[in-house]
Amino acid sequence: LVDAASAGDRTAVARLISLIERGGDPAREVARLTYSMGDAYTIGMTGAPGAGKSTLTDRLITEVRATAQPLGVLAIDPSSPFTGGAILGDRVRMQGHALDEGVFIRSMATRGHLGGLALATPEAVRVLAAAGMPIVIIETVGVGQVEVEVARAADSTVVVVNPGWGDSIQANKAGLLEIADIFVINKADRDGVDRVEQEIRAMQSLAAHHAEWIPSIIRTVANTGEGLPELIDAISAMEKWLADQGRFEARRKAYWRERILEMMRHALMRQIRRHSLTDAELDHLATEVAGRKQDPYRTVPKLVESAFGPNEQHRT
Amino acid sequence: LVDAASAGDRTAVARLISLIERGGDPAREVARLTYSMGDAYTIGMTGAPGAGKSTLTDRLITEVRATAQPLGVLAIDPSSPFTGGAILGDRVRMQGHALDEGVFIRSMATRGHLGGLALATPEAVRVLAAAGMPIVIIETVGVGQVEVEVARAADSTVVVVNPGWGDSIQANKAGLLEIADIFVINKADRDGVDRVEQEIRAMQSLAAHHAEWIPSIIRTVANTGEGLPELIDAISAMEKWLADQGRFEARRKAYWRERILEMMRHALMRQIRRHSLTDAELDHLATEVAGRKQDPYRTVPKLVESAFGPNEQHRT
Repeated sequence: LVDAASAGDRTAVARLISLIERGGDPAREVARLTYSMGDAYTIGMTGAPGAGKSTLTDRLITEVRATAQPLGVLAIDPSSPFTGGAILGDRVRMQGHALDEGVFIRSMATRGHLGGLALATPEAVRVLAAAGMPIVIIETVGVGQVEVEVARAADSTVVVVNPGWGDSIQANKAGLLEIADIFVINKADRDGVDRVEQEIRAMQSLAAHHAEWIPSIIRTVANTGEGLPELIDAISAMEKWLADQGRFEARRKAYWRERILEMMRHALMRQIRRHSLTDAELDHLATEVAGRKQDPYRTVPKLVESAFGPNEQHRT
Repeated sequence: LVDAASAGDRTAVARLISLIERGGDPAREVARLTYSMGDAYTIGMTGAPGAGKSTLTDRLITEVRATAQPLGVLAIDPSSPFTGGAILGDRVRMQGHALDEGVFIRSMATRGHLGGLALATPEAVRVLAAAGMPIVIIETVGVGQVEVEVARAADSTVVVVNPGWGDSIQANKAGLLEIADIFVINKADRDGVDRVEQEIRAMQSLAAHHAEWIPSIIRTVANTGEGLPELIDAISAMEKWLADQGRFEARRKAYWRERILEMMRHALMRQIRRHSLTDAELDHLATEVAGRKQDPYRTVPKLVESAFGPNEQHRT
């Protein structure tokens, strides 16, 4: 499948991403086979529902395709047992690109598994990179923790805001501000666009000591395509800056630092659940602790010590 | 401090919660000392910003205090370097209870640490329980993953909605629907209240196979106090149901199951970071992996194996 995908077989790409979504050993195998193949500039696209992210993404696809480059789009869906894939309706317009062989659009469900998604998304990006796509757009829905986590996996993060937001949304913006590399004020033909830009600049000045890249602020009207060339320029400028400053390496190293720790955590837990704390043992221990017959603050360290065994002592 | 707190010393309670927020060994010690003291019925209060959670909580405090029971309130704040504690402004009205010795109100900052908060909140609840409070209200801001995690730590979760929400918020509701034990339609004097109730009932009928407790739907106008007696009744009814069905034990066992795994993960990582993967080693490995000189999918399992040592083999 990996060979087929790297030869451009779209069905193979889709199946590899499905394997990654499902997790477990096959997912690890796909990740292992694809991690060193290809390289994609990854653009996160985030902002509140209704801000116009899908329309912007659709326009971006058109602009990128005008340069004949292939690209991938991962649309993150906060699906649940109740909504199913209903939110995808918003993305119907993107399907205008469905017949274009140079565009691979795929939705990934969060299913409430924050950790799972944070792992699966970069691995899906690597599948697309292995399939020869130099650009991947990750589009999220909403402005929660999931978005922040996913954006961390992107090389550049575009945060889409609108003029005239309410105060409650302002509060939520805080989390997005910190991850924004490029601000887009979409629906910039509406009232209040100057005020929103001032607010962003004011918040930027507070944050200036954090950032060496000063996020640009682009005004767009996604429906008409106004501002799209400027957005493309900003995205390219950031790519150049990242490359010139050696930041791709730094960002990827930071990503792998977290990812290796995550892999350790999973591997350690698999090991310990197999040998030192089976399901039945965990169940028994939880019952005892809930009934206050065992102190978990004593039992857990003991379990961990015994798992590592006496040979660990010599290394202390 | 624990002795002082259990004797009702409010300063001691505040300091214990600060220790828990800060994490590390002192937090573990506080958790260890308080985990088996006291018992509190914990009510999560969640919903979108502006839905009226703070006003409802304020009213609930008044109702509970009319029965002379003491209670604690933990207000979860999505603080960031930018907003600081600004959002607390919303909660100024609760400060009307500041002089009441029977009410302990405390804000806890999320600071973006989902995992940290999910651990700290139940431990802060146990401090309040140890200080003799039979009821603790956890109020969150917003409708994200943090809210869902925090709500899981509560015995009963109240989800506050308003009439006439937009579609984008409807989507977000999905995550909350699954955790709601009691729905409050606040601002029920506004148009659209029937439609919201119908929507909730429709979604409930889809979810019916999940739940044995059928979430009640209460209409309130927090500003006037309308519907508050009904809300108190619903909260009490759920407490009785949980007790009758032995669900407090089941929920607490489920909580400890997750918590023990979390404690294991932390303890394992502490152990391995000390012995097998120091900061410098992790840094080196991340550089190698980012530069594609090492395959993390081979290295990590090897590291884990070597950490457990050969004695582990005999137990396989």
